[in-house]
Amino acid sequence: MYDLAAADPRLRFSPYCWRTRMALAHKGLAVETLPWRFTEKDVIAFSGQGRVPVLIDGETVVSDSWEIADYLEKTYPDRPALFGSDDARGTALFVKRWTEGQLHPALVRLIIADIAKILDPKDVDYFRESREKALGARLEDHVAAKAENLKRLGDLMAPLRFTVKDMPFLGGERPAYADYIVFGALQWARCASPQNLLEDDDPVAAWFGRLLDLYGGLGARAPRPG
Amino acid sequence: MYDLAAADPRLRFSPYCWRTRMALAHKGLAVETLPWRFTEKDVIAFSGQGRVPVLIDGETVVSDSWEIADYLEKTYPDRPALFGSDDARGTALFVKRWTEGQLHPALVRLIIADIAKILDPKDVDYFRESREKALGARLEDHVAAKAENLKRLGDLMAPLRFTVKDMPFLGGERPAYADYIVFGALQWARCASPQNLLEDDDPVAAWFGRLLDLYGGLGARAPRPG
Repeated sequence: MYDLAAADPRLRFSPYCWRTRMALAHKGLAVETLPWRFTEKDVIAFSGQGRVPVLIDGETVVSDSWEIADYLEKTYPDRPALFGSDDARGTALFVKRWTEGQLHPALVRLIIADIAKILDPKDVDYFRESREKALGARLEDHVAAKAENLKRLGDLMAPLRFTVKDMPFLGGERPAYADYIVFGALQWARCASPQNLLEDDDPVAAWFGRLLDLYGGLGARAPRPG
Repeated sequence: MYDLAAADPRLRFSPYCWRTRMALAHKGLAVETLPWRFTEKDVIAFSGQGRVPVLIDGETVVSDSWEIADYLEKTYPDRPALFGSDDARGTALFVKRWTEGQLHPALVRLIIADIAKILDPKDVDYFRESREKALGARLEDHVAAKAENLKRLGDLMAPLRFTVKDMPFLGGERPAYADYIVFGALQWARCASPQNLLEDDDPVAAWFGRLLDLYGGLGARAPRPG
C-alpha cells in the first residue's frame, strides 16, 4: 500500500490512508506500506489516478479509501465485517460525508502550518499552492485564528461526542468502518502536528484513545512530529 | 400512540413522533394515533415523563423515540429490521445526534413562527416561553433572518445531500431507521409550515420524496397547514 509520508518517512499523516490501515488491521490482513509524497504522481500512475491510498493485493490494484473498503469486504467476507449490514454501509457513507465536509476543513485550519513544516522539501510548493487556493487564505492566516478554529472544532464534534459518550464505538460495542473514517481525521492531526487538539475530559478523546490502542497499538505507536 | 397535534387535530408535527410512525410502518405494525398537546402532561403522566411519542403496546408502555425503536426491534425481530447490524445502530445514533444537534436548530429558526400559528390556544404561551428561552430570541426575530437561516440549512445538509446523491436511502437500497430520523425533521417542517424549504433540484428533496411515498404515502398524505 502506498501511504502518504513526510520528509521523515516514518511520519504517515493521510486521513484516507489511516482509514485503510485500520480497515486492513480490522480484517486481520498484514500490509507493507510504502512511503509516498504528494508530488510523486508518476510512482502511482499505474493505478490510473494520482492519490493515495493505493492498495496492491496480488494482481489487483485498488485506489480510493471507500473503494478499498468495499473491495476488502467483498474479497474477504469471512474476516470481521467492516459494515455489518447495508444500512451500516449507508450511514457510514453519511459519516464519511460529514467527516470530509465538516471535520476535515475544521482540522486543516488548525494543522496546516504544521503539515507544511514536516513535508518533504519537494512537496512544499505544491502543498502551499494547492491548499491556499482551496482554502482561500495564506497558511499563516489560519494560525492566527487558532482560538476561534479550536472552538469551531469543538462545536462541530458535538454529534460525535454525544454518540461515543453513550456507546464505546460508532460501531456499537465494537469498532466498525465508520469509526475508522473519523479516526483517520484525528490521527491525521496527531501524526502531522505536535498540538493536542482534544481536551482530556472530552468523550471524543476517550473514544480516540480506544481506537489508538486497537490492533496492538497500531495508531498509538505511529510516530509524531516535534 | 400519543402524537403531538396542532389545534387542528389532523396536523401532526413532532419530528420524534414521525420517526416512530415510520418505524411502526417499516415493521408492518398498525397503530392508532391519539392527538396530544404540549400542555397535556397529565394525560401521559402514566408513562412517567411528559413528552411524546408514548407507545402503548398491549400491557407495555414505552416513551422516547429511540427507546421505542429498540423496543420494536427486540419485540418484533421477525419483521423487517430497523437496524441491520450493531454498527448500523451505532451510526444511526450518530445521525440522531447530528439531526437533533444541527438540523433541528436550523429548521426551528425557519418554522417556529409558523408552529406558533397552528398550535392549540392552550399551548401557545407554553410554546413561546419555552422556545424563546431555549433559543435566546423572540419568535419574530427568526422570521426576519429567513434568508440567512435558509442558507445555513442548505449548507448544513451537505453531508446528507452527498450521501443520498449516491444511494437511494441512508439505509442503502432500502430505507432504515437512520432515514426516519432525518425524515422526521423535514416532515416536522412540512406538517407545521406552509413554506417549502427544499429546492426542487436538491438531491435531499428527491430522497425526501421517496420517503414521503413509502407505506402507501403515509408521509405524503399527512395534512399540511395553509
